[in-house]
Amino acid sequence: MNDFIFHNPTKVYFGTEQLAHLGEELATFGTKVLLVYGGGSIKKSGLYDRIHALLADAGLSVTSLGGVEPNPRHTTVNEGAVLCRREGVDVVLAVGGGSTIDCAKAIAATAPSTTDDVWDLIEGRATVGEVLPIVTVLTLAGTGSEMDGSAVISNKPRNLKCSLRTPLVRPRVTFEDPSLTATVPAYQTACGSIDIMSHIFDATYFTDQPQLDMLVRVQEEVLKTVIHFAPIALDDPANLDARANLMWASSWALNDFLFDGVKQQGACHVMEHELSAYYDITHGHGLAILIPRWLRYILDDTTAPLIHRFGVRCLDIDASLAPIAGAEATTCALAHFFFDTLGVAATFTDLGIDERHFADMADHACEHGPIQSIKTLTRDDVIAIYKLCL
Amino acid sequence: MNDFIFHNPTKVYFGTEQLAHLGEELATFGTKVLLVYGGGSIKKSGLYDRIHALLADAGLSVTSLGGVEPNPRHTTVNEGAVLCRREGVDVVLAVGGGSTIDCAKAIAATAPSTTDDVWDLIEGRATVGEVLPIVTVLTLAGTGSEMDGSAVISNKPRNLKCSLRTPLVRPRVTFEDPSLTATVPAYQTACGSIDIMSHIFDATYFTDQPQLDMLVRVQEEVLKTVIHFAPIALDDPANLDARANLMWASSWALNDFLFDGVKQQGACHVMEHELSAYYDITHGHGLAILIPRWLRYILDDTTAPLIHRFGVRCLDIDASLAPIAGAEATTCALAHFFFDTLGVAATFTDLGIDERHFADMADHACEHGPIQSIKTLTRDDVIAIYKLCL
Repeated sequence: MNDFIFHNPTKVYFGTEQLAHLGEELATFGTKVLLVYGGGSIKKSGLYDRIHALLADAGLSVTSLGGVEPNPRHTTVNEGAVLCRREGVDVVLAVGGGSTIDCAKAIAATAPSTTDDVWDLIEGRATVGEVLPIVTVLTLAGTGSEMDGSAVISNKPRNLKCSLRTPLVRPRVTFEDPSLTATVPAYQTACGSIDIMSHIFDATYFTDQPQLDMLVRVQEEVLKTVIHFAPIALDDPANLDARANLMWASSWALNDFLFDGVKQQGACHVMEHELSAYYDITHGHGLAILIPRWLRYILDDTTAPLIHRFGVRCLDIDASLAPIAGAEATTCALAHFFFDTLGVAATFTDLGIDERHFADMADHACEHGPIQSIKTLTRDDVIAIYKLCL
Repeated sequence: MNDFIFHNPTKVYFGTEQLAHLGEELATFGTKVLLVYGGGSIKKSGLYDRIHALLADAGLSVTSLGGVEPNPRHTTVNEGAVLCRREGVDVVLAVGGGSTIDCAKAIAATAPSTTDDVWDLIEGRATVGEVLPIVTVLTLAGTGSEMDGSAVISNKPRNLKCSLRTPLVRPRVTFEDPSLTATVPAYQTACGSIDIMSHIFDATYFTDQPQLDMLVRVQEEVLKTVIHFAPIALDDPANLDARANLMWASSWALNDFLFDGVKQQGACHVMEHELSAYYDITHGHGLAILIPRWLRYILDDTTAPLIHRFGVRCLDIDASLAPIAGAEATTCALAHFFFDTLGVAATFTDLGIDERHFADMADHACEHGPIQSIKTLTRDDVIAIYKLCL
């Protein structure tokens, strides 16, 4: 086990009656709020009006920035930073899923900085110093952005999707009301659930680094939670128990606890970010297509026991199988779960993706060298995995 | 599930090379440190000298308070508060196990307060306001005090052992180096391990309140971690993997994550605090004797399925048994684990405790009414459970 630091000071209000505390929490940071949100779903659901009423009751003045894209654009971030400066905003409030929260984080980092362009922060031409406080109201379980210190932003003209990583953008306060996710469509519920699982797979579960046995066990239980409750949420969208378990699993899959002591790049996330950058697909869908192919590609005598263990613990695979056979059965069962049980399309071809950009995507994925994970992936490996996904 | 707030801002440095950061972390709070420690073990191990060297290198001035008792006394707390005021201490550093950390927390709360006596804070005659920052170096896995917001203090003249509960006493920074626990004697290793398990049992696992399925699963994995690694640590005290798993389990069993949404009093802790108050026994030992008797006492048709589930998941009890038979087998297996595998004596009689104070202890345990837990316990129930422990 590597030494590690665990430090996650985000304060989380969890439950169906907690939004009542939104105004008082925002007021601790000042009086001027930038409200960041995405498409029109929060207007349709009435949440937009409810938030405005809560903020008005608390005597807060609000500037709004709506229309944040899935795979949020750097131009939207820059627009938000201009608003913060012009209005003297004290605190940035994100109401939405991971894209909205990531956009809000990036705005909060850019507004007080020396640049007008968040891309300067991402590429190191300017540094993140002071960051405006960030508060979130989560409406979609998946990305884990609500408790983590990272924001993923897309630069469409350059086909780039990159992370701004610093504990300074970790939300100060997060509101998680599972009833707010009852209206999330099936496709987004499925993709969010896959995203939760991917964080555990990619960041820590499939690793050759030593880690604490307790954490491996806990990772498996969070995975089993998603495998159990995601289909329930698809069948019965308003099932509060399923929504609550998925929401809390989302936060804990990425709030650093499960990663303690493991350092790897997250092979599937690196490969998927290229996909989203070029094709603007839903992150969790790209991951669903990649993960089973990636596992099959890296399956050998060294990785099979761990892949098989995951299958035994989480997917009812027969423990008595030989490791290779058990690992193969596991990748099939996982593909079945993603593509049949959760119902997301199984191939790049289904998404209209062909191989024309694979070479460029692989070049960028490996621009700092091969991807470090349980198996190091070169540029050629990345292309080979992409081809398996067609 | 009840609504809940999760907020644990303690920064934890975990690993064998982390103490090098102690000086820089303390220096963020000021220059004057009160070093609180217990018996002579940290002098014998060389840790005391190592800490002093680290603090000197960081240019910090140190006042020492040694000799903190197991079941720390309010008089020692008051002595520490006097030292803080006299020396103008900026930060309180605890080096030790739960008793030392609890004493340091209580000192940090008392020194800036309006009273000279911590008991005024515990009994509400004075209020906790500003609290000096607390930093801990953990040397014994068990109490979870290193990440929680509570300090348990004993008042010997009055035979009282009570908690000072406020998030203000949560340590700001905690250093967890599992190699520092390699020299912990077998008896303390066993009692600490039982204490970890008791926090999960008592605060949340055995409950009739609804809770998130994910958390129940995680509770079971932390319990299994202790059941697996405590015997390894007894057989092979320097086994770093076992010590690391026990240490991280200690912190997570009591840092609020596993309790999310459950509110109960912790029946065994309430009953055990009376024991320690009267007899000054080791907390984990009292819990070991109480827990299996308590489970047997509350075993009925409503509690049996949950007790049986614990046995199936964590102690290899046959899942096909009827609930009552399965629950009975579970309490026997748990008693076997505590008294045979971990080797702590099984009865009050072994500890020289007879029934002479049971009535007074039960009176005090129920002074605010019956104990609220999975089964409400009246004064008579408490006496009956004590008698089962003889």
